[in-house]
Order: sequence, then C-alpha cells, then structure tokens
Amino acid sequence: MAETFVIAQGGGPTAVINQTVVGATLEARRKFPGCTVLGALHGVRGVRDGRFVTLSDLKEDELRAVAATPSAALGSTRDKPDAAYCEAILKGLQQAGADAFIYIGGNDTAGTQGILSEAAGGRIACVHAPKTIDNDLVENDHTPGFISAAEFVAGAFLSVDLDFRALPGIYVGIVMGRHAGFLTASAAAWSLDEDSGPHIVYVPERAFERVRFIEDVRGTLDRHGRCIVAMSEGVATADGRSLVETLVPPELQERDPHGNIRLSGTALGQAIERILAEDLAGTRARVDTFGYLPRGNVATINETDAREAYEAGTFAVEAAEKGGGSVALQFDGKKTVCGLVPLEAVAGKTRHMPADFLHPDENRVSDTCLDYLRRLVPRKYAVAKPFA
Amino acid sequence: MAETFVIAQGGGPTAVINQTVVGATLEARRKFPGCTVLGALHGVRGVRDGRFVTLSDLKEDELRAVAATPSAALGSTRDKPDAAYCEAILKGLQQAGADAFIYIGGNDTAGTQGILSEAAGGRIACVHAPKTIDNDLVENDHTPGFISAAEFVAGAFLSVDLDFRALPGIYVGIVMGRHAGFLTASAAAWSLDEDSGPHIVYVPERAFERVRFIEDVRGTLDRHGRCIVAMSEGVATADGRSLVETLVPPELQERDPHGNIRLSGTALGQAIERILAEDLAGTRARVDTFGYLPRGNVATINETDAREAYEAGTFAVEAAEKGGGSVALQFDGKKTVCGLVPLEAVAGKTRHMPADFLHPDENRVSDTCLDYLRRLVPRKYAVAKPFA
Repeated sequence: MAETFVIAQGGGPTAVINQTVVGATLEARRKFPGCTVLGALHGVRGVRDGRFVTLSDLKEDELRAVAATPSAALGSTRDKPDAAYCEAILKGLQQAGADAFIYIGGNDTAGTQGILSEAAGGRIACVHAPKTIDNDLVENDHTPGFISAAEFVAGAFLSVDLDFRALPGIYVGIVMGRHAGFLTASAAAWSLDEDSGPHIVYVPERAFERVRFIEDVRGTLDRHGRCIVAMSEGVATADGRSLVETLVPPELQERDPHGNIRLSGTALGQAIERILAEDLAGTRARVDTFGYLPRGNVATINETDAREAYEAGTFAVEAAEKGGGSVALQFDGKKTVCGLVPLEAVAGKTRHMPADFLHPDENRVSDTCLDYLRRLVPRKYAVAKPFA
Repeated sequence: MAETFVIAQGGGPTAVINQTVVGATLEARRKFPGCTVLGALHGVRGVRDGRFVTLSDLKEDELRAVAATPSAALGSTRDKPDAAYCEAILKGLQQAGADAFIYIGGNDTAGTQGILSEAAGGRIACVHAPKTIDNDLVENDHTPGFISAAEFVAGAFLSVDLDFRALPGIYVGIVMGRHAGFLTASAAAWSLDEDSGPHIVYVPERAFERVRFIEDVRGTLDRHGRCIVAMSEGVATADGRSLVETLVPPELQERDPHGNIRLSGTALGQAIERILAEDLAGTRARVDTFGYLPRGNVATINETDAREAYEAGTFAVEAAEKGGGSVALQFDGKKTVCGLVPLEAVAGKTRHMPADFLHPDENRVSDTCLDYLRRLVPRKYAVAKPFA
C-alpha cells in the first residue's frame, strides 16, 4: 500500500483541523515506517504548484504542538477546481509520487476528491476527511470543528444572557452559517432554564418575516424583561432571498466569483439594528456580528472535538488503504465512531437541520435539538442563577 | 463598627464582578459574625427603591457559586444620580439601617460615593470597589474585570491572526473602549512574533486619519501578506470627534440622555468596511464588532482576575472600618496589592494609556505596553508557528 501520502486542508479553518493532519501523519508513520507524508501549502493550490512541507520529517512532539494549534497550519484555499485545475492537481500529485491524497474539508472538498479519484483511475487513493463548523455534511452525525465553534457560541450566549439580565434590553448575535443553522442553534445549548436566552432563534431553514420578528421580540420583552436573539447570517425570507439581499442596499452588497452574496459582513447587523430602532424605538438594542470569533478560537478548543478530529485523521489512513472515500463521524447510539462512505454520497450536498430540531410554531429550537446539542456540547461551567 | 452592609453593582458587568460581592460578604461575616449584608438589586436604583437580597443568609457554597458566575448577579444600572437622586439613595441606606455601603463600579460610581459620603456626614462608610473592563481608573495599576476581558481579546486576535495566515486578507476587530485603549491594546498581548498580528492598533489616545490608515494597511499587506487591525470603538480624528461621528451618517447616530454618541453599534464596522472596499477594492476584507463578547465571557474568566476581584471585596470591608474611600489595585513591583485612596482621587477621572504605551511613529503598541500586558495576561496556550 501507499508509501507517499499527500495531505491538504481546504475551506474555512477550524479550531481542530490540524488534529486531523497530525492524526493522519502519525498513523501513516506508524503503519508504514519510512513513508513520506507531504503537507500541501494552501490546499490543492499547493498540490498544483508543488509547494509542500515534509510532515514525516517532524518529531512527534512538534507535530503534537501543531495539532493543538487552531486554524489550518498548512494554509487553506477557497479555490473550487474545474476540470483543467483538477488535471493540474493530479499532475502535482503524480510528480510528488503520491499513493494517497487526504483532503480535509467540507462538501466542496469531497466533490474535488470525487473528480480526482475518477481521473486517477485507482492509482491514487483519494480520501476526504470531514471538517466544517457549519456541521452541514450529510452522512455525518456531526463534523470535526463544529463542537469547538458551538462551545464558543453556547458560552457567548450564556454570558450575554447574564449580561442582559443585569442591564436589560434586546440583544441580537449574528452567527456564521449560510445554509445550515446548527451553529446558530448551539446558542441554546447552555441555556440555564425556561427564562434563559436565546429566546428567539432564526436559522436559514426557517423563513424570516419582519412583522413576526418584531412581534416575537415584543412578546419576549413582556415575558422576560429582556430579549436575546440568535440569528444565522444566512437567514432568508419566504421567497428564498437572503436577508442580507432583501435588507441591504444593492451598492453595499458584495458577491464572490460564483455570484454568491457575501454574508460575512456587518451589513446584516446594521440592517437589524435599523429595524429595531424603527419598530421598537426607545428600547435599548444591541447587535453583534460574531464573524470569525467562533471558528478557530484558541479559548474554546473542545477536547472531544480535538480527539475526534485526530481520529478522523488516523481513520483517513485506513480509508486510503481501502482505496479512498469519505470519512464520516457517525453516532452508534452510545459514542461517535468513524465510518467510510462513498465520496459521491457527501460531495456537493448540504445537510440541513432536521425539521424536528425547530419548534413547530415558535422561532426557537426544539427539545430534540437541545438533546442533540447537549450530547455534543455539555455545559462546561457551573453558573448560579442571578438574583436580579 | 458596621453591622449592616449594603452592596451594589454599577455600570457594565464583568466576568468577575460577583467575586467582589462575595469577597465582601464573606469577609463581613467573618469579621462581624451576625452582621447583615444586603445586596441591592440594580445598583443604587435598588437602594433607592428598597429592593434587596439578604446575602448574609446564603450558605458559603451558594455564595461561591455566585462568585464564579460572570455578569452582575445583583443586576446593574446606568443611572448617574443627581443631588435629588443621591438624597433618595441616602434615605434608602438609612431605612436599610446601613452602617456601610460598598458600591462596585467605575469612576462614575466613585463619584456617586463621593457625593453620598459627604451627605452621610460620616454616619455611613461609603466605599468604592473598582471594576471596569476599560482599565481606565486612575490610582489603579489595573482594574478587576480587565484581565478577563483582555484574555478574551488576546485569544481572539491570536486566533484570527492564525485564521488569516491560512486564508489571507484584511481583518479589523472593533473592541469596546470609549476613552481608553487598554482593552484594544491587549489584542497584542499574545502575539507570537514580529510577523504576528495585530499589525495595526488604533486606540482613542491616538488620532485616526483615513489616508494614513490605508497606507498602513497597504504596507502591512506588502510585508506580511495579510493585515490584522485592532480598533477601539472610541477612536477619534485629530479634531477630537469620534470616528463614529465623522463616518456614520447623522440619521444613524444614536445618543444617550447625556448627549454622548452611542459607540456600541455596528455603524463603525460598517463604515470601516466601506472605506476598505473603496480604497482597497479587490482585497478580501472582514470587519467584526466584538461588542459584548469580551466583557463577561464565561470561557475566559481569568483566575488572577477572579482572585483580585475577590480580594478587592474583602479589602472593601477593611476600607469600611476605616471610614470609607476607594479601593485600588496597586502594583508593588512584584505583586498586586489592595490600597485605599480618597474617593475624590478616582471620581470622574479617566486614566488613559501612558504615552510610552504607543510606538512613537507607528500605529501599534510599544514594548513597554507589551511588558505591562504580558505581566497581567501571560499567554495561556502553547501555539505552534504555522507552515503557511
């Protein structure tokens, strides 16, 4: 079997994506003493351009230090290779003498591996290892990187809820997530009781309506004396247009080369701030855009997440021995295990929140969703109920 | 001496303000067995309205749980009492039978205590215990609450810098701070080396100029391939007007009853985003408003901060025995100690960053500032230098 492994990281970094690189490197070295493990710089771009680091030359303690470091140590890329680009990648892999290529990323990454696998015709084992804070990969119970990001969001909303008990008002926290609301929903994971925020949760899976939003906020203020809202950046109105698109003036909208509107800006927050100022004038209202803070935060690297990301790396080596495929984190009813699924089962598909993760009538998460979140991200801190 | 203590919390919550309440309560009970300790709900408003919790009735383990909880458990207030309000507070204290009043807050709180102390004519010992994430109290080396908030900011910038090494671009993180730049400066506390962000730091103490800003960003992109900026919400232009005031259209500006412009919004972030889109078109740029995330975050409660806040509470009881005053955290060259200073020494004054905390020619912090920050907030996590 494989004696030269190439590993790359793609898409947005996470707090634990380096664990997967190091898990794969150490496992390859254990199983194939004397093997070469090359880390490509900036994803498939590094493979194409022949820019590699020889990971197998590093000592174990150096590798363990990399594993504990958040963000993608090899660098990443947003490139979505077309056929010609894939050919160049394949050439790069061949020049590097690769027997296996492990690419860590989301569903786009699985898609790239599907194309490469076919083009390589079995000569190179192409493995996709999962990674995304969005938790939106099908075939996975959850994905490496999600739990750490969710821990940040859960802790932030617990904290902000306590803050707004002390000085009441409306708070809206806008959380990354274009198509799937898992990360935003995790705002509720550490809520203390029925009185706790987030009182309202808006995710891309549920249409946003301005009138209903204001009604919900008003009702929450009446009941709880404050109102904490968790909102996905990808929230859309019933016609399927993102809120950014409907609320932000066209001249302030930014689009990527694929025509997708950029969501990771302050525009949505500003629009929500304006809605609240107009429709609930006189009530203290604050809007924060969490942006990049949750996704690779050194302060909230979750141990379970780190271990599972490492195991996804070691399992990727086993997957390479079997000829390739997509590594998936599956739940066997008691614990998380790694499974191997076909690349085409994951490629290009988005896993949305199941319908029963949302309360049928109210804009908040269901008990089923809370059970899922609390299994993955149990509350880490003991907190006393405030007097006020 | 005092047998009935009243304690209240004022202004913005912090991660450790409850430590001070509990430190004072347990110390009062230790020194004066059988004493009554009343916690006023929502600061002086609760004193005025006679809304109290009897803290001395609680068991020690219940109090310890409160101490470990971020934000102000008694609730807080932004009220700045005038003479009539102060009279009502004094009446409330007298009705509660208070021998001492410990008010935990910033320089406004010290001011209120100054007025009350004079009005009480020695019958009630008025003590100000320090608290502010802004670190802007004179007579203090640093203030309880600052270190935890600084730890959040330091970790966030370390993390974002790693993120932007993986996927390069410009990042601007906007941090709370109207007049003092300490919290924003703490973005640099955990920087790994000369290549690390934040590469540019804008604080209220140094005038902002758009042309220079763009030059600085461009130069940083050339040198480092990415540019990480830490910016205080209170940054101002040379004429003394806040950037929010100069960049944000008047109809989007919000003012408090004192005429102060509201800084804690998304408006500045949006304005900076627009400047970057105009002057550096085509370069990936992201702006996040940290807002409320650093100030009472359960994930970054710093142990030193918690201990010092507790000690400020125990020392407040000693201060009450001495007739009142303002508790100050002082540095004796080796460690932090509590001192007692007159209320008028602290009241209404703002401590700015010393001039030598900023690089004379560049918009970044000096080594003197770094030494100070690293003494208070040593880096907590081992991080490996990325390959990319």
